[in-house]
Amino acid sequence: MRIAMFGATGYGGTEAMRLLCERTDVEVAWLGSDRLAGCPVAEALPQFAGTAMGELRFSPQQEARELSQVDVALLALPHGEARMLVPTLLQQGIRVIDFSGDFRLPDDVYAAWYGSELGAYDGPSPVYGLPEVYREAIVGAQLVANPGCYATCAELALLPLVESGLALTDRLMIDAKSGVSGAGKKPSSGTHFVEVQESVRAYKVGAHQHTPEIEQVLAATVRRRRPCANDEMDATADAPVQVLLTTQLLPVKRGIYLTAYVPLKEEMSAETLQSLYEERYREEPFVRINPYGASAEMRHVIGTNLCEISVHLDRRTQTALIVATIDNLGKGAAGQAIQNLNVMFGRSETLGLSMLPWM
Amino acid sequence: MRIAMFGATGYGGTEAMRLLCERTDVEVAWLGSDRLAGCPVAEALPQFAGTAMGELRFSPQQEARELSQVDVALLALPHGEARMLVPTLLQQGIRVIDFSGDFRLPDDVYAAWYGSELGAYDGPSPVYGLPEVYREAIVGAQLVANPGCYATCAELALLPLVESGLALTDRLMIDAKSGVSGAGKKPSSGTHFVEVQESVRAYKVGAHQHTPEIEQVLAATVRRRRPCANDEMDATADAPVQVLLTTQLLPVKRGIYLTAYVPLKEEMSAETLQSLYEERYREEPFVRINPYGASAEMRHVIGTNLCEISVHLDRRTQTALIVATIDNLGKGAAGQAIQNLNVMFGRSETLGLSMLPWM
Amino acid sequence: MRIAMFGATGYGGTEAMRLLCERTDVEVAWLGSDRLAGCPVAEALPQFAGTAMGELRFSPQQEARELSQVDVALLALPHGEARMLVPTLLQQGIRVIDFSGDFRLPDDVYAAWYGSELGAYDGPSPVYGLPEVYREAIVGAQLVANPGCYATCAELALLPLVESGLALTDRLMIDAKSGVSGAGKKPSSGTHFVEVQESVRAYKVGAHQHTPEIEQVLAATVRRRRPCANDEMDATADAPVQVLLTTQLLPVKRGIYLTAYVPLKEEMSAETLQSLYEERYREEPFVRINPYGASAEMRHVIGTNLCEISVHLDRRTQTALIVATIDNLGKGAAGQAIQNLNVMFGRSETLGLSMLPWM
Amino acid sequence: MRIAMFGATGYGGTEAMRLLCERTDVEVAWLGSDRLAGCPVAEALPQFAGTAMGELRFSPQQEARELSQVDVALLALPHGEARMLVPTLLQQGIRVIDFSGDFRLPDDVYAAWYGSELGAYDGPSPVYGLPEVYREAIVGAQLVANPGCYATCAELALLPLVESGLALTDRLMIDAKSGVSGAGKKPSSGTHFVEVQESVRAYKVGAHQHTPEIEQVLAATVRRRRPCANDEMDATADAPVQVLLTTQLLPVKRGIYLTAYVPLKEEMSAETLQSLYEERYREEPFVRINPYGASAEMRHVIGTNLCEISVHLDRRTQTALIVATIDNLGKGAAGQAIQNLNVMFGRSETLGLSMLPWM
Repeated sequence: MRIAMFGATGYGGTEAMRLLCERTDVEVAWLGSDRLAGCPVAEALPQFAGTAMGELRFSPQQEARELSQVDVALLALPHGEARMLVPTLLQQGIRVIDFSGDFRLPDDVYAAWYGSELGAYDGPSPVYGLPEVYREAIVGAQLVANPGCYATCAELALLPLVESGLALTDRLMIDAKSGVSGAGKKPSSGTHFVEVQESVRAYKVGAHQHTPEIEQVLAATVRRRRPCANDEMDATADAPVQVLLTTQLLPVKRGIYLTAYVPLKEEMSAETLQSLYEERYREEPFVRINPYGASAEMRHVIGTNLCEISVHLDRRTQTALIVATIDNLGKGAAGQAIQNLNVMFGRSETLGLSMLPWM
Repeated sequence: MRIAMFGATGYGGTEAMRLLCERTDVEVAWLGSDRLAGCPVAEALPQFAGTAMGELRFSPQQEARELSQVDVALLALPHGEARMLVPTLLQQGIRVIDFSGDFRLPDDVYAAWYGSELGAYDGPSPVYGLPEVYREAIVGAQLVANPGCYATCAELALLPLVESGLALTDRLMIDAKSGVSGAGKKPSSGTHFVEVQESVRAYKVGAHQHTPEIEQVLAATVRRRRPCANDEMDATADAPVQVLLTTQLLPVKRGIYLTAYVPLKEEMSAETLQSLYEERYREEPFVRINPYGASAEMRHVIGTNLCEISVHLDRRTQTALIVATIDNLGKGAAGQAIQNLNVMFGRSETLGLSMLPWM
Repeated sequence: MRIAMFGATGYGGTEAMRLLCERTDVEVAWLGSDRLAGCPVAEALPQFAGTAMGELRFSPQQEARELSQVDVALLALPHGEARMLVPTLLQQGIRVIDFSGDFRLPDDVYAAWYGSELGAYDGPSPVYGLPEVYREAIVGAQLVANPGCYATCAELALLPLVESGLALTDRLMIDAKSGVSGAGKKPSSGTHFVEVQESVRAYKVGAHQHTPEIEQVLAATVRRRRPCANDEMDATADAPVQVLLTTQLLPVKRGIYLTAYVPLKEEMSAETLQSLYEERYREEPFVRINPYGASAEMRHVIGTNLCEISVHLDRRTQTALIVATIDNLGKGAAGQAIQNLNVMFGRSETLGLSMLPWM
Repeated sequence: MRIAMFGATGYGGTEAMRLLCERTDVEVAWLGSDRLAGCPVAEALPQFAGTAMGELRFSPQQEARELSQVDVALLALPHGEARMLVPTLLQQGIRVIDFSGDFRLPDDVYAAWYGSELGAYDGPSPVYGLPEVYREAIVGAQLVANPGCYATCAELALLPLVESGLALTDRLMIDAKSGVSGAGKKPSSGTHFVEVQESVRAYKVGAHQHTPEIEQVLAATVRRRRPCANDEMDATADAPVQVLLTTQLLPVKRGIYLTAYVPLKEEMSAETLQSLYEERYREEPFVRINPYGASAEMRHVIGTNLCEISVHLDRRTQTALIVATIDNLGKGAAGQAIQNLNVMFGRSETLGLSMLPWM
């Protein structure tokens, strides 16, 4: 399998390169960058010195119009850029995994939340790259929209309760925290060590662009769950899915940690809640459900493609608290992209993806 | 004013010593510690070398039975110990500010949440040491129960909405994060640098002992607000106050940061919400309301006695998000104790308390 | 005393403002900034909201040509800028404390180490603002060159051994580490949280511009020490002072920590070494000598104007190891500037300067 | 290859388990622990849940007397314990890699620096497990003494200059810094997050137990280098090797970073110095020499088995500065043990060892 890589020098792209570097069944054959065109990869990214991909040179992005013998392209580009590149790639028969938000939402929803318009696109429909829900569609997908980091973690946290129909879905509160790599590599006062260390800061409160992505996946879940349109037994069946997402910057390099507050339709025991999650993810290699009451910890997932979840029931307020954590560059970006790659090309889904956290 | 200090070597106690050290209107005249009895203060706490209190020696705690010429005692002791000491202090006419949870709750509520029984107490009623609510009672108090750190921050965040009667009070979600000094000075695997750095961990989910303290203060607020028992116009007047508090450990030394999710009874504009908070705290020297939309930041309050609050309205879910942050050793412990001391003894309330954060 | 401030928004300048803010004997009366001209101070620096200086507005720097009723100017500007401003200030009878390197070195030495030429200057001689050596000259100085952060720490570490004539001065090795605020407020990849956290990086190895500053102060010390030019008993009297300074960036916000390796001319006991340091600094309020063997710790000085020193003798190699630490924004910049201000204007030298570290 | 593991729950032992876990050519077949005897491995170390070694249970250490079908034992035990276990293992024909200091030094030197006596040992001579020097001996070794973390880094930094005879070896200054995992997993006030974060602290100044280990390796190098005992041309040939090692604790989880100050016998150019290092390590897979002047960075080696070195020449003082960094749990402990394992058993030396750092 030959891979073309776009955006290798951002945090997500470099992590994808790291994960691919030690595999023998794939070859990163081409790397695009206008800014670095002609520069040896190992010069811009010294950690790859001595590896095959370190020997390559960056190519100008216009070469993307004529890539020979490439099976799949990974795009880790700023929002808006993938839209312009993807059609020409697909036309050459190259399958695409896109890290950006360009193919995750209807265009009008994108414009409302990202604050900019996307170019038109009329190619094959993108498949949302969350294997825990869309595995079958990913197998045959030409274009996979790799999910957002907050979105991945929130969706995995909420899916079992929403799928089961036990949650009141119109007021799902998600209090989410992210490491600084989530803010990208470009220096700014907001990522300056002195401003971040020993502090916490909320941002985009109630306005984060991953909100509609989460709502869309959960709403599709609600629709799937409904056996028939006339299901009169379920009075809340048409309740909208509404998510309130609070995002906060933490003084850590990597990692997302969130708590989802889920009001329940009716009384539930802790055992039922725990079973619901264990059952839902029993076959999923990358989702770990902790024993009841053992809180998820961010350090358990850093460096891996895991999502660790702990469930907690607050009897007094009949609220389920779901705590979930991922590595924003692992399951939240590059790891998940590799997982999708494995699924798309019939490889073992866990190939090249660690389940043992760094310490 | 002469002060006796108990528990000077814990984080809260040492911070109180630091705040008192440069004041000329008070004298720390006696320090109790059985473990360190006889030891010079500057030996156990070298930063006080060269200061008057550094010259003192720790005294055995049994001397507390006969303290001469002491006006007030600060108790920064483990839960349960203050209960045993306070009566003998009050009998000597010494006023007391207690940092622990021993006098904040009815005994049965304490037992339920702290998991241990307190000794009996039948002295003068303790006053809850939150000057923003109980200033007048604190002036004359013999015994002040200094609030818990999470409780202080949560109460200041929620008071305006609860007092105004605009909040649905039976499902108040508080997602709170704390620095490691909140876990105390005793080494444990949970405070080991390697386990904390680059991680986050929830603990006591839905079971933190500050929960009933917050509910109690807010419930009293609801009662105060009600003009008469027969107020039939307010159908929710008897709604219980129920708080769901999630607490999480962050890799920072000091600081509490929380988001409170408050469902609203009826539609409200952002302007109204903002005004509500600005009005409520207009005269309060230690509560800062950010301009609408400018998220509170933890680093703005570290080293101070401030509480910084930002309010955010989520129109879609009709939820108010209140973000609040304090220094857990400042407004969350020692700073607030000094503020109470100032109030009790007719000093300027801001004396010796910084409003300029460390950088 | 009325103060004009230049460069208030950099880390050093803001810290000076913080230290001055709570003093009643001085008034920051004017703040210069071309970029922020007209902007209220509290808008650019919100922590000063509610203070007198927060009410001011920034003035264009050309107003510096005609400042009325200003006694002293603090300049916390980038290297090169102070050279241009200082003459016009001195001509108005305004005394100056300059934080930059513009007046610390002969012009040719400056050019060699800073890599740029300074404008000509022929006003009154600057006095090097290290009170522990030049206190008397500072009292009457019109222009004080506030020392560099590394230089302050290294000089205080080495002075006793160099003054005493017991050190071999031609190969003084200084291994120094600094917090990120030393790199300034401007965002860059080198100060990005993700690049700094969990890492260490040496920079300007053997080429740091504070090197000649240290050598100059120590060489002056050697000259002062020599009773006469013909002192034949001291064969090494003419040995040059040569310093090898290694500087390293640490994942902390503030603080300098260094180890100086000092080869000794002859055998020395640990007691002698310890006494030498204790005697030299006995009267200095801001230099603390630890008991022998108790290593200096950075956290003991953060937030203060202290320099903490521990001395260690390695008998096998006859080398003295001097460990010293300061807060780079305290004794290494703003704190020392305030100390100089106090000395220049006959105030108590410790006024407004903390000796109690943050925790 | 079947492996028995002792001390799996310490930081070094767990890291070795992590490195071994994904290999298919080895099997961790037995884990010893008296404290955890009978406990499933995945219960004590949850990250191994779902792996083969996670399914095992800890065995009492006395079973070490009769281990069936074990080829090699890894011992990550506190100092002193390996001495007692190793003979019985060797007698069963089990080869041993010991992480501790028990077999690195002559017994009297050990006693002088570690402050305790070792039990007698008269088995086969241990081989010092630094493959870059002792690779051939390691191939056939029954017992490999895995080097100390500081020692590994210092030796790799100094070897080229000492082997070449160009260094003055009697006053080698090494200023070394370590992450907190180097202090072990046992909680103490010295590893409490609040005491470590935003601070630096020197410890065991000039007295660290890795000092004689470094001297021993370098002295052997000097001896090897000398062509004959009567080499009268080299007046310094008999100069002792003396190392002054300063160790400091940094607020990072993992990593060692050190600067070695090496006085040179005669003038040398930067090019010569650079070539010397490049030549020496040209064939070494785990030693990286940076381009001249590009300082080594700790983050480049974390998570790998690499040692990154940058060389710097200070012309004025004729001193070579060698900056070197390793991951204390990688090349400083578990990684190097696995490297030794690979050498001992004829595997590819880089098998299972990463050269791509975490980000």
